[in-house]
Amino acid sequence: MSLFEEVCKGIRPPDYESMEKASKRLDSLIKPIGSLGELEQIAIKLAGITGAIHNEINRKCMIVMSADNGICEEGVSACPQSITALQTVNILKGLAGISALSKHAKSDVKVVDIGINANINYSGLIKRKVRMGTANMSKGPAMSRDEAVKAIETGIEIVKELVKEGYNLLGTGEMGIGNTSTSSAILIAFTGIEADKVIGKGAGMTDEGYEAKKSIIMKALELNKPDKNDAIDVLSKVGGLDIAGMAGCFLSAAYYRTPIVIDGFISAAAALLAYKINPLVKEYMIPSHISAEPGYTYIMEHIGLKPFLDLNMRLGEGTGCPIAFNIIEASTHIINDMATFDELDINNDFLVDIR
Amino acid sequence: MSLFEEVCKGIRPPDYESMEKASKRLDSLIKPIGSLGELEQIAIKLAGITGAIHNEINRKCMIVMSADNGICEEGVSACPQSITALQTVNILKGLAGISALSKHAKSDVKVVDIGINANINYSGLIKRKVRMGTANMSKGPAMSRDEAVKAIETGIEIVKELVKEGYNLLGTGEMGIGNTSTSSAILIAFTGIEADKVIGKGAGMTDEGYEAKKSIIMKALELNKPDKNDAIDVLSKVGGLDIAGMAGCFLSAAYYRTPIVIDGFISAAAALLAYKINPLVKEYMIPSHISAEPGYTYIMEHIGLKPFLDLNMRLGEGTGCPIAFNIIEASTHIINDMATFDELDINNDFLVDIR
Repeated sequence: MSLFEEVCKGIRPPDYESMEKASKRLDSLIKPIGSLGELEQIAIKLAGITGAIHNEINRKCMIVMSADNGICEEGVSACPQSITALQTVNILKGLAGISALSKHAKSDVKVVDIGINANINYSGLIKRKVRMGTANMSKGPAMSRDEAVKAIETGIEIVKELVKEGYNLLGTGEMGIGNTSTSSAILIAFTGIEADKVIGKGAGMTDEGYEAKKSIIMKALELNKPDKNDAIDVLSKVGGLDIAGMAGCFLSAAYYRTPIVIDGFISAAAALLAYKINPLVKEYMIPSHISAEPGYTYIMEHIGLKPFLDLNMRLGEGTGCPIAFNIIEASTHIINDMATFDELDINNDFLVDIR
Repeated sequence: MSLFEEVCKGIRPPDYESMEKASKRLDSLIKPIGSLGELEQIAIKLAGITGAIHNEINRKCMIVMSADNGICEEGVSACPQSITALQTVNILKGLAGISALSKHAKSDVKVVDIGINANINYSGLIKRKVRMGTANMSKGPAMSRDEAVKAIETGIEIVKELVKEGYNLLGTGEMGIGNTSTSSAILIAFTGIEADKVIGKGAGMTDEGYEAKKSIIMKALELNKPDKNDAIDVLSKVGGLDIAGMAGCFLSAAYYRTPIVIDGFISAAAALLAYKINPLVKEYMIPSHISAEPGYTYIMEHIGLKPFLDLNMRLGEGTGCPIAFNIIEASTHIINDMATFDELDINNDFLVDIR
């Protein structure tokens, strides 16, 4: 059995008994039942993931998958492909959005070259290049099936190592010019949703560029005819290496019972892919923010998850995750630190007079 | 000139020049323009408040105003009035929701007895009781004009002291059984909106209790006829001492150019009141979460603010604020720690080969 098969088949359901116990404790806290809303739901979800009612976040890590997309040569992005490599280095240097937000969240950042179309030597970069960017999916499959599985396994292995190192809250991010196109193609391939509803303008694109982007994505889908019942077929034909790597992270986090956060549209496309491989991963995923990219909301509805941050962000890199980390930590403090009605000291000496 | 008048008249517009400079810096950072959404808007707002482009949050404080409401004797709440006193002590003991969330956010909590209907002796409680709870507004004005102004001035003074102590990010919370009724009455008095649209069920109320709550609130409004063009008239007739105190905090924070966060419905009602006294306060307020209480959204639309957390919370006590504190701090890290395109090292030696 391959690593990929082993992990996919080894994902277990959440621990319903612990979820029930967590829910009971939350209902016994000194507050109206359910009044802490999503904070309570997250605390329950963590109990299901770890099997413990009282959880503590010890080490946090953002995983940023960097890869190039062959579709770029069709002009689907306002940015040149070289930005993938440049911005990957900026993240490593601590200068990018995800660097600043991770530092604030006391989260480490691991940057993985899973398929950048350039050879980069920079301290800290995790070199796991599967290939020098994907092929142009409007002319044929983006990658082979073997490459798609290898990229997923890369994500699986990276999460395995992080869990071994004691990280117990993970986030998923990416850097890859053109990856809103691959994410849109994956979403359309799986759901058949209309292109107009899911394809966004990306960063700084003209109206003409936008129309061209849509027709190129549709061309790639028509040419490759991905089979929506075969997730690896969808991924290899119209996906990307960054998305594959993140999908591997989601599968691995579920396998190792570790909470993992979804960022925006690209990260959500990877979550959708992992969900199509094994729907149980949903129980281990925590969404963060409503991306300004239109396809994002469709994916969340499809998986059945609801983001809790509405920050009008559309940067990518994983930037929604460190903000969500703080809220996930807050949920642990609710269930760990608040008193229950039973625990209250009923000695009311301090009250001289209640009328 | 009274303290109240001095503060109301002394509130200045935000520093538009600094906002413009902050906006320019944000546009020059290594990310697509505007792609960090609300984080950028908050950073710009902070620049307008403090006059500095680079801000740092040094000390954070939650201010919890505790007071009782005479309307409680009409059975508008599922809880007995004594819960106000008990829960105030639980907050001081560190056992309540706001205690756990503030500790997580590294925020202090100051609890003010501004009108609890009981005499409480407990370490840390700030004793500024204006009266032993308000009168029953369904039988007459909740309080006198002088008491309303005194309660506002209490909030003004508390923020003044906190600013002097070096706190530079504040949050507003409350504890007061019956205060969704007073908040609803204030909102209806100012906007004329239909009762059905704004009055919520509160915590654990029956359908019958809900209908009774609505008719009692409408009775109070019909009897007292608050003048919507006179905020102190509205406050004194159908408001509460907790709301008055928080309104004073908002006015004072604007006067001392310090960012202050709105929690849920009650805190928003106080924000609306402050906004009616001087609309400039809006420039110093930062919303946090969309409260599950129906009236909340109407207030935000009226003031023209947009919350960024959607956590389905309805606990009160200020619990949305510490979560927002982290996001506000995140906004400072964006503008302080990210690189601009100009600052980038354009030495690309690390790139062996960009194809």
